[in-house]
Amino acid sequence: MTGEPIHDLAHLGRHALFTPDPAGTLRYFVDLLGMDVVAEGEDCTYLRAFGDYETWSLKVIASDRAGPAWVSWRTASAQALRRRIDWLEAHGHAGRWTPADHGMGPSYEFTDPDGHTFRLYYETRRYEAPEGQRPVLPTNFQAYAGRGANVRRLDHVNLLARDVRACRVFWQEGFGLRTYEIVRQADGEGEVASWMSSTIQGHELIYTQEHTEAHGRLHHLAYVVDSREEVLRAADLFTDARVRIEAGPSRHTAIQGFYLYTREPGGNRVEVANGGYLVFDPDAEPYVWNAEDWKAKPGWGAPLPPEFHVYGTPDAAR
Amino acid sequence: MTGEPIHDLAHLGRHALFTPDPAGTLRYFVDLLGMDVVAEGEDCTYLRAFGDYETWSLKVIASDRAGPAWVSWRTASAQALRRRIDWLEAHGHAGRWTPADHGMGPSYEFTDPDGHTFRLYYETRRYEAPEGQRPVLPTNFQAYAGRGANVRRLDHVNLLARDVRACRVFWQEGFGLRTYEIVRQADGEGEVASWMSSTIQGHELIYTQEHTEAHGRLHHLAYVVDSREEVLRAADLFTDARVRIEAGPSRHTAIQGFYLYTREPGGNRVEVANGGYLVFDPDAEPYVWNAEDWKAKPGWGAPLPPEFHVYGTPDAAR
Amino acid sequence: MTGEPIHDLAHLGRHALFTPDPAGTLRYFVDLLGMDVVAEGEDCTYLRAFGDYETWSLKVIASDRAGPAWVSWRTASAQALRRRIDWLEAHGHAGRWTPADHGMGPSYEFTDPDGHTFRLYYETRRYEAPEGQRPVLPTNFQAYAGRGANVRRLDHVNLLARDVRACRVFWQEGFGLRTYEIVRQADGEGEVASWMSSTIQGHELIYTQEHTEAHGRLHHLAYVVDSREEVLRAADLFTDARVRIEAGPSRHTAIQGFYLYTREPGGNRVEVANGGYLVFDPDAEPYVWNAEDWKAKPGWGAPLPPEFHVYGTPDAAR
Amino acid sequence: MTGEPIHDLAHLGRHALFTPDPAGTLRYFVDLLGMDVVAEGEDCTYLRAFGDYETWSLKVIASDRAGPAWVSWRTASAQALRRRIDWLEAHGHAGRWTPADHGMGPSYEFTDPDGHTFRLYYETRRYEAPEGQRPVLPTNFQAYAGRGANVRRLDHVNLLARDVRACRVFWQEGFGLRTYEIVRQADGEGEVASWMSSTIQGHELIYTQEHTEAHGRLHHLAYVVDSREEVLRAADLFTDARVRIEAGPSRHTAIQGFYLYTREPGGNRVEVANGGYLVFDPDAEPYVWNAEDWKAKPGWGAPLPPEFHVYGTPDAAR
Repeated sequence: MTGEPIHDLAHLGRHALFTPDPAGTLRYFVDLLGMDVVAEGEDCTYLRAFGDYETWSLKVIASDRAGPAWVSWRTASAQALRRRIDWLEAHGHAGRWTPADHGMGPSYEFTDPDGHTFRLYYETRRYEAPEGQRPVLPTNFQAYAGRGANVRRLDHVNLLARDVRACRVFWQEGFGLRTYEIVRQADGEGEVASWMSSTIQGHELIYTQEHTEAHGRLHHLAYVVDSREEVLRAADLFTDARVRIEAGPSRHTAIQGFYLYTREPGGNRVEVANGGYLVFDPDAEPYVWNAEDWKAKPGWGAPLPPEFHVYGTPDAAR
Repeated sequence: MTGEPIHDLAHLGRHALFTPDPAGTLRYFVDLLGMDVVAEGEDCTYLRAFGDYETWSLKVIASDRAGPAWVSWRTASAQALRRRIDWLEAHGHAGRWTPADHGMGPSYEFTDPDGHTFRLYYETRRYEAPEGQRPVLPTNFQAYAGRGANVRRLDHVNLLARDVRACRVFWQEGFGLRTYEIVRQADGEGEVASWMSSTIQGHELIYTQEHTEAHGRLHHLAYVVDSREEVLRAADLFTDARVRIEAGPSRHTAIQGFYLYTREPGGNRVEVANGGYLVFDPDAEPYVWNAEDWKAKPGWGAPLPPEFHVYGTPDAAR
Repeated sequence: MTGEPIHDLAHLGRHALFTPDPAGTLRYFVDLLGMDVVAEGEDCTYLRAFGDYETWSLKVIASDRAGPAWVSWRTASAQALRRRIDWLEAHGHAGRWTPADHGMGPSYEFTDPDGHTFRLYYETRRYEAPEGQRPVLPTNFQAYAGRGANVRRLDHVNLLARDVRACRVFWQEGFGLRTYEIVRQADGEGEVASWMSSTIQGHELIYTQEHTEAHGRLHHLAYVVDSREEVLRAADLFTDARVRIEAGPSRHTAIQGFYLYTREPGGNRVEVANGGYLVFDPDAEPYVWNAEDWKAKPGWGAPLPPEFHVYGTPDAAR
Repeated sequence: MTGEPIHDLAHLGRHALFTPDPAGTLRYFVDLLGMDVVAEGEDCTYLRAFGDYETWSLKVIASDRAGPAWVSWRTASAQALRRRIDWLEAHGHAGRWTPADHGMGPSYEFTDPDGHTFRLYYETRRYEAPEGQRPVLPTNFQAYAGRGANVRRLDHVNLLARDVRACRVFWQEGFGLRTYEIVRQADGEGEVASWMSSTIQGHELIYTQEHTEAHGRLHHLAYVVDSREEVLRAADLFTDARVRIEAGPSRHTAIQGFYLYTREPGGNRVEVANGGYLVFDPDAEPYVWNAEDWKAKPGWGAPLPPEFHVYGTPDAAR
């Protein structure tokens, strides 16, 4: 890396998802994942996990189809936000401002090389729990309710991309995201997947290979629980709620996270996750898997079903 | 032990508690412990944990004070029930039959040497979950809902007694309960506490020293969770629900269970418990602590507060 | 069930395994599972887990091939042992006495309907830890060392049988073992698997279908750890020790145990296990799966590899 | 905060401890904590936890007394190191260079306002496990051995200081450490404790009140394990190893970490830790406890013994 590292992105921020089944989607996030509704709009609902420090982390928007509306990053400061916009505009990625939205300040909207909509914002409102939801410890944001899978906070997002490498380079060069792992294509050039982060946590933003002609699709969104045991509990919950488990509980080789994948009734894939390593080494190079080693990848963990690699939202056939 | 062991008690059965605050008590068991209401009577409510195989394990009865209404055992068979009644009647402990009650068959009611009311029953109704609560696995009794502390089933009961030794001998000789640990008084004769069970689990019935002139009081009732981690989670729940934690989470020396004690709003002490050893040895002698060794008892675990040893329900001063 | 239940078997007892690679087998049980060598014979070694109350639970015997030498039960008393021998002799299963062996009293050896060698014994020596291995808590048997997978005690054994039903009926009628689950063959008569126990624990003895012409083979032996988290840790250990993981960590549908299967270097399959339900209901009927329901069996958990259903020791081709 | 944040410290780095009982100290870190010796010098030994990415994290130095030799930080780059030295020299804290040491590059040594010795370094050698210790996953640094408490990596250090506030301001202003919690003295000005970090983790460097006239003392050094369950396991280990447990297992109010404190045979206090919150908010203000609120601090967790607040190394009386 040349020059000083960029520290302008603070963390993966609020997200918005489209769903064709808003009532079902809400039941999934509230009754099963244990999240709370904090506000409602005309065609949308704002949800939070008990450990999210901002007012909400997920906006569910009624639509005729599933998929990602947008993904966002909170910047480290107002200057940091300005710097990143300058970079976008200087490199042909100019976007536009969108207005504030329920405690999320005005955000600058643009697209990544695959066409996913992203937003950058700095101004934010921290969550103030209403009477009856106030935590006893002032360093918590909300009372601990222990409902359902009891997810603590938004963890990471995985996007499908036709050109994974181009997306990775975009975030690495333009935003200073660090890449912790890369899987190469058989040609040794292209990339099948990459795991990136703005912090010491192994993954905030993942790109994986889009196998259709579509652009801008979501692979999954992940919320984190406090232990692997809680991922196992979530499997019991989903099972008895008749939510089909697509994969897990088991462990990924990349980043070593413990996973459980289901789809919310709208069709978007959601992960209940725990773990994954932390990277303290400030100049650790990404670990690069060549196609052959990846195919025979070591470590325990159940094999992922074929659909895991191709299913995304929205439906690519539409 | 002379003669063949008695196997007539199958397990600690349904319980009934008095409460002066029925609404508060219900909120505690349903919202915090995660239990379900299965039936309601005029002055009482029937509750179950998701892993109880019978229709309910706890009957909460409105009263002017807290305390135990009765504790029960399910016998291994109808003959076993008859044999135990014969023993009671032959040894001056004759009681009386009480009618069936919401899936609990007719039971024979009598008192232990300290005056606690007990019931024996054999006939029972197994829980049939209603539509929407049915588990996917047919070997479960109810869907896994993961609500609150999410207790799985009734585990054990601890009763205060003026003469612990007399109570222990009563159950050991009359019912074949096995004693796994005893704490002796300084005189080397009397007993401060004893832990008994009808199974390989270290404790179903505990007696501990009553320090007042009262009789028939409850020390605590315990429901079990699946891991020590879930006991720790329960501490978060109770804290944010403003339920005072009396002791724990920590580990007991006797039986080695992991504990968390609070009091339900009616005043009865309730434990969220996990662990405790299993005893496979069919003729293991009880481990006997003399007073001195017990005072300096080894092993980790926070010290119990003084009130732990004296508080019970009902209030002894009334 | 007619008549009174039999309570003559106290628990699954000591086991003996053949191994063609004694040094490798010892490294596996000692360095990876965390067991201790307590005695050595000419061609054999005696091993214990830290929570076994008897002197040892596993005898490893050098041989030209892998497989089970014998499985044993400790009876509840000397009279109980005599009663079971009487039953065996009265029903055409007469065996012979074998001498005491390092703290295991004289045992009566016989075969089950498939030809597996079993032993019954009552006299036993409890483990007395040597200086430096003494636990602080007198209710423990050995200091907690936390080595490797840190298995606590022998849990259950799974034997392959040509006629699973005949084996189940043998133990149920002759010894009072309770059957908690059965999988029926497509004909609705024969049985593919059955899970039996002498206690409230869901499985001590399992029979599963032998798909070859062989008799008397072992499917696996299981040692138990304290939590599902420890099963996950064991997977890390085995992976880095280059021990191939055959299946897991995941959850079984039957008994709901959490499993991890590997093979010790001699070839015998060993499970690191946790969980499985407890059965308190004294007259619970076994849950019977018909072939169709079992094929589509519900619940989460990775599919088992085909070899899991056919591999056993010794090699059936020899 | 004025100006842009400083990102020059990458993470808390290698540590050196004095011990008057080198053999006992080694047994503690190797046999109980599960660390490995990677090199030995004339009067010192270099130790690592399996998840440390550098060659070692702890240097144990034979001495006539216990206490901290030095604490270090790895900087984010060579330029970052230069910048921090410039700041030190410009603000009257000039130090001196010390030579490279077993894979730790040359370091710049200086003192904090209380007189603790610190070092800054950038050049480092990453750990290359020898044959037999190589992990299967290339993103791990060492095979998982599961020995003893099985600590994963160095987590944080807690230093005693006469003037906690001065120390906090020193690191905050000179190095950009973020402060996550502060406990104020009754006067509302001075500080009793502060928790600081260079990352999103709640604590890397803690200062707490020195109650004697001494300077430069250590309160404790903390190594992290993977779960709260592993902290509980460590309590079993320490108990049976006859290592006295000073406090825990329980939960701290500040940062919410789960703790277990013992002293290694040389006298230095060591914590086996898990948890503590992550701070994603880039401009979260430290939570400030006033003396009164801190005294009545909320949340569960056993009270800390009085000695916890006064004991440190070296002995202040010498």
